[in-house]
Amino acid sequence: MAEFKANPRNRVMRYPKRAAYDAATVHAILDEGLVCHVSFVMDGQPFIIPTIHARMGDQLLLHGLKGGRMLEHINAGNPLAVAVTLLDGLVLARTVFNHSMNYRSVVLFGRGASIEEPAHKLEALRCLTEHVCRGRWADARPPTEKELQATTIVGIDIEDASAKIRKGPPGDADDELEWPTWAGVLPLPTIPQPAETDPRQQDALPVPAYVRDYRR
Amino acid sequence: MAEFKANPRNRVMRYPKRAAYDAATVHAILDEGLVCHVSFVMDGQPFIIPTIHARMGDQLLLHGLKGGRMLEHINAGNPLAVAVTLLDGLVLARTVFNHSMNYRSVVLFGRGASIEEPAHKLEALRCLTEHVCRGRWADARPPTEKELQATTIVGIDIEDASAKIRKGPPGDADDELEWPTWAGVLPLPTIPQPAETDPRQQDALPVPAYVRDYRR
Repeated sequence: MAEFKANPRNRVMRYPKRAAYDAATVHAILDEGLVCHVSFVMDGQPFIIPTIHARMGDQLLLHGLKGGRMLEHINAGNPLAVAVTLLDGLVLARTVFNHSMNYRSVVLFGRGASIEEPAHKLEALRCLTEHVCRGRWADARPPTEKELQATTIVGIDIEDASAKIRKGPPGDADDELEWPTWAGVLPLPTIPQPAETDPRQQDALPVPAYVRDYRR
Repeated sequence: MAEFKANPRNRVMRYPKRAAYDAATVHAILDEGLVCHVSFVMDGQPFIIPTIHARMGDQLLLHGLKGGRMLEHINAGNPLAVAVTLLDGLVLARTVFNHSMNYRSVVLFGRGASIEEPAHKLEALRCLTEHVCRGRWADARPPTEKELQATTIVGIDIEDASAKIRKGPPGDADDELEWPTWAGVLPLPTIPQPAETDPRQQDALPVPAYVRDYRR
């Protein structure tokens, strides 16, 4: 799918000029984000849970311990909304009204089902692990049969999605520029710090290159 | 309120040892987060929107342009779930199964109503501005009557809330420690970078101290 079709469910209503519906933009934000938030409904009550995700092709993967409320609910075919938000910086305008943030976000809608076929399930788990830390799958001890049985993985078909992006300097109007205050953007990137070796580490092993040079 | 009472709606089901229900812990996470995600339901369909928030006493504030779908929905008294998640680092265990993240999150439930009384509304806007950047309210051009009219602010009474926190090294079992791979934590803090002055800045004003030394 090259483009998600805008419709009443996924159309960006506020600041539509910030919207994007192409799959490349949507996928890039999903792939960079480490955390998503899942919105679902039980008996008319909205719930929200933050969790790890990964994209496998056109599907979004979620996982957790077997028997979890959210995963059981997803596996029953109920509708979901999922968001991934990357905060890039503060936009400090001259006017309170024009203050904003620079960000890249995706909201998607879909339904999911658990992945049961063993090879598919293992590949999904590899995809989740590599999403969080590329290179880790080859080094970590693979899941045992018992651990696989204790894990539920769901694949969500992305029915609708949209991205929303704000970047650049403050949007004050021309006749506001003389207000005597500094204005600009404060970048707020996530910057990996030196890794902290587990105190229980038994052998003196070096920090792997994919951890030392970690980048999203 | 010193403590939120755990009940079927807000009780942390997965890893209950990571849960906290005291207001001080919940408030500290809400206060540090720059973005929240709001989950709501329309015609049985879950929606989710990322937005700026602030806490004013026991209420959570949200704002936006007047007429926005989410704010109208909140103002009609519909139930909400809101999450704030702070990601602290990757937990790279020896086993794929024990991989995790260090994080601090809050999920809260409540209903909101718009704040209309002018002094209250201005104070809420001050609270939102200062939440994002302490010190900014005094420097920025205050909202005009027209801008205030174009802005909706809602106050959400927090009915239930819970926090969930994971910290520390990987949780591999003792009999897993000999697996020959490095294990530990990769800290992923948000680190403010030098501010980028608006290219349209008219006078050579210094970057304010509250921007230069910005910390959450």
